[in-house]
Amino acid sequence: MSVSSNPYAPSPLDLVSNVNKFQLIESTLREGEQFANAFFSTEKKIEIARALDDFGVDYIELTSPVASEQSRTDCETICKLGLKAKILTHIRCHMDDAKVAVETGVDGVDVVIGTSQFLRQFSHGKDMNYISKSAIEVIEFVKSKGLEIRFSSEDSFRSDIVDLMNIYKTVSAIGVDRVGIADTVGCANPRQVYDLVRTLKSVVSCDIECHFHDDTGCAIGNAYSALEGGAKLIDVSVLGIGERNGITPLGGFMARMIVAAPDYVKSKYKLRKLRDLENLVAEAVEVNVPFNNPITGFCAFTHKAGIHAKAILANPSTYEILDPHDFGMKRYIHFANRLTGWNAIKSRVEQLNLQLTDDQVKDVTLKIKKIGDVRQLSIDDVDSIIKEFHSDLQ
Amino acid sequence: MSVSSNPYAPSPLDLVSNVNKFQLIESTLREGEQFANAFFSTEKKIEIARALDDFGVDYIELTSPVASEQSRTDCETICKLGLKAKILTHIRCHMDDAKVAVETGVDGVDVVIGTSQFLRQFSHGKDMNYISKSAIEVIEFVKSKGLEIRFSSEDSFRSDIVDLMNIYKTVSAIGVDRVGIADTVGCANPRQVYDLVRTLKSVVSCDIECHFHDDTGCAIGNAYSALEGGAKLIDVSVLGIGERNGITPLGGFMARMIVAAPDYVKSKYKLRKLRDLENLVAEAVEVNVPFNNPITGFCAFTHKAGIHAKAILANPSTYEILDPHDFGMKRYIHFANRLTGWNAIKSRVEQLNLQLTDDQVKDVTLKIKKIGDVRQLSIDDVDSIIKEFHSDLQ
Repeated sequence: MSVSSNPYAPSPLDLVSNVNKFQLIESTLREGEQFANAFFSTEKKIEIARALDDFGVDYIELTSPVASEQSRTDCETICKLGLKAKILTHIRCHMDDAKVAVETGVDGVDVVIGTSQFLRQFSHGKDMNYISKSAIEVIEFVKSKGLEIRFSSEDSFRSDIVDLMNIYKTVSAIGVDRVGIADTVGCANPRQVYDLVRTLKSVVSCDIECHFHDDTGCAIGNAYSALEGGAKLIDVSVLGIGERNGITPLGGFMARMIVAAPDYVKSKYKLRKLRDLENLVAEAVEVNVPFNNPITGFCAFTHKAGIHAKAILANPSTYEILDPHDFGMKRYIHFANRLTGWNAIKSRVEQLNLQLTDDQVKDVTLKIKKIGDVRQLSIDDVDSIIKEFHSDLQ
Repeated sequence: MSVSSNPYAPSPLDLVSNVNKFQLIESTLREGEQFANAFFSTEKKIEIARALDDFGVDYIELTSPVASEQSRTDCETICKLGLKAKILTHIRCHMDDAKVAVETGVDGVDVVIGTSQFLRQFSHGKDMNYISKSAIEVIEFVKSKGLEIRFSSEDSFRSDIVDLMNIYKTVSAIGVDRVGIADTVGCANPRQVYDLVRTLKSVVSCDIECHFHDDTGCAIGNAYSALEGGAKLIDVSVLGIGERNGITPLGGFMARMIVAAPDYVKSKYKLRKLRDLENLVAEAVEVNVPFNNPITGFCAFTHKAGIHAKAILANPSTYEILDPHDFGMKRYIHFANRLTGWNAIKSRVEQLNLQLTDDQVKDVTLKIKKIGDVRQLSIDDVDSIIKEFHSDLQ
């Protein structure tokens, strides 16, 4: 199937859209390390980096080498693994940090500085002139070493738009590889993101990267709208781990993108490795995969209401936009409950290899619903009721 | 503070926006009952309904009274509780269901029918003429009983736009109270939602309600975009529980809306009851509150990286768009790790009531980071290091 025949694909009217050609900057080993529970040993970092690389992410971003001595040596170690993914490290916009970063063996350096009034006042205390001057110095230095360089503002959505566009225009002019927009506090909403990216797109000639925190639940929607507006790279982490409740999650973002660009996503990323990757990271940071996680949550492909089950049995696409098999997952029709319908029970009767007419299935369904009204049913319960009903008929 | 002075509020240019005057249709006892793990006893339903009412939701939606005998009597029971919230029940677009629904004592009836080709082919097998005819019959019947009536399509985003607008125009003309758009499979994205709602707004004169599944992680972003486009009512459930991985979660949606419309949200909903409400439902359906849940996830207000902690200590708004106190929650600065900075440690030194100069704090911070490089630190570990450092100085 060609992408253009997909009705849920980006509109051909959206000329700036990168929905069909986005890239991933995977930040489990940087943003993810800022998650409350994260402490990654060197061995665990290597294991995660290899798994991310195998999954097919474009970039792997690592904690700043100046964060701690071990952070620096781990960065060097991962650079030497010979992964297909490009390795980045994430530093403050300062020459002290840049000088250490370029010696680690990374392919590129992600530079960030706070541009909102909040951060200028309460974090680094510098004005826009100073920011601009340090940005130029750091960018030219990193470029002189032959490395990729990204310049990002921090808390972009609470920064003055004129200040923002000025600094982005400046760094684009001196040849930065990417500029970054960061919703550091998770306040942005999708249409606002689209507008800011569209505006930025008209100001810079380089690629645009976006980073969204999930405090208000829009990190995936914002990332998608950013791509529609012309951003090309999205920061993600496994299960979204990061500061506070984290950023755009890799898995949920894959769910969003496979709907819009199925051929691109399926050919580029090993989606069947997603579950293992999430389990690896969940175990490392001692959390459970959320019950309602897209794709891998325990109920992501469970259908319950009778009316849903009936249609799903006839054609799974009626109530599924994602095909569980693309992710190595399975569909499950939940029939052991009072909301069940006779189509779901009929399917179970067939699985049990019993012969019942449709009217008989309807009778036993009523029986199951009645008991389901009184107490929670297990599959064994339902199977017993069906088998008893069947043997009573003989 | 007036809403108009809030820079993150909806743009005054958005004339159709209902961001400042939205309403909630709380569907934990309908959509939520379709969650894989849900089995609510009558007592539990009553407890949940009372808690939702106390929180301040506008409507409480209940499972169809024809789903099972107990569903019907529970519906009657909840109608008799005398709650402030209006009680709705959710039925198929069929006179058999409508006749039962109007006898339960509900304030209104939510009618739904599948309009996508998928559902017309694999679920009910009816054409648009039939759908239109049954809709008119059911709506006029429910209205004749003096009850509120909503007509919703199902799987709206995979339905033919001309079919959709035709049926909505028809039901609006005969005086339906609300029309509903439902992203039944979770395929919609925010800008698409905005466009469809804007279009629908020009076709109908009644209120618009929206229902978003979260399969691709956009249920909150879509709900917000829908309000911007002129929808007025959003379906939510506690923790988002529902079919598959569920719908727009009440808590995450509150996080989104308090940023946009703080005065409205704070005056209307008892946000400090959110955590108890989520715990009540989580316990009833035997799930854990996800680690990354907005607001109530264990790390939602935890700040870790040194650079974040520094700014947060100076002014919490630097890295927080939500104030934890609005929800009866607390902020936590995570200082026992290798990413820590001297500002976070200085704050801990002060909490311990010890006297150290800034240079001394920087020295002990280096010591803490070094040990944090080797192993995971607890607060007790850090406190011991600080106390030892302090007593060595004496």
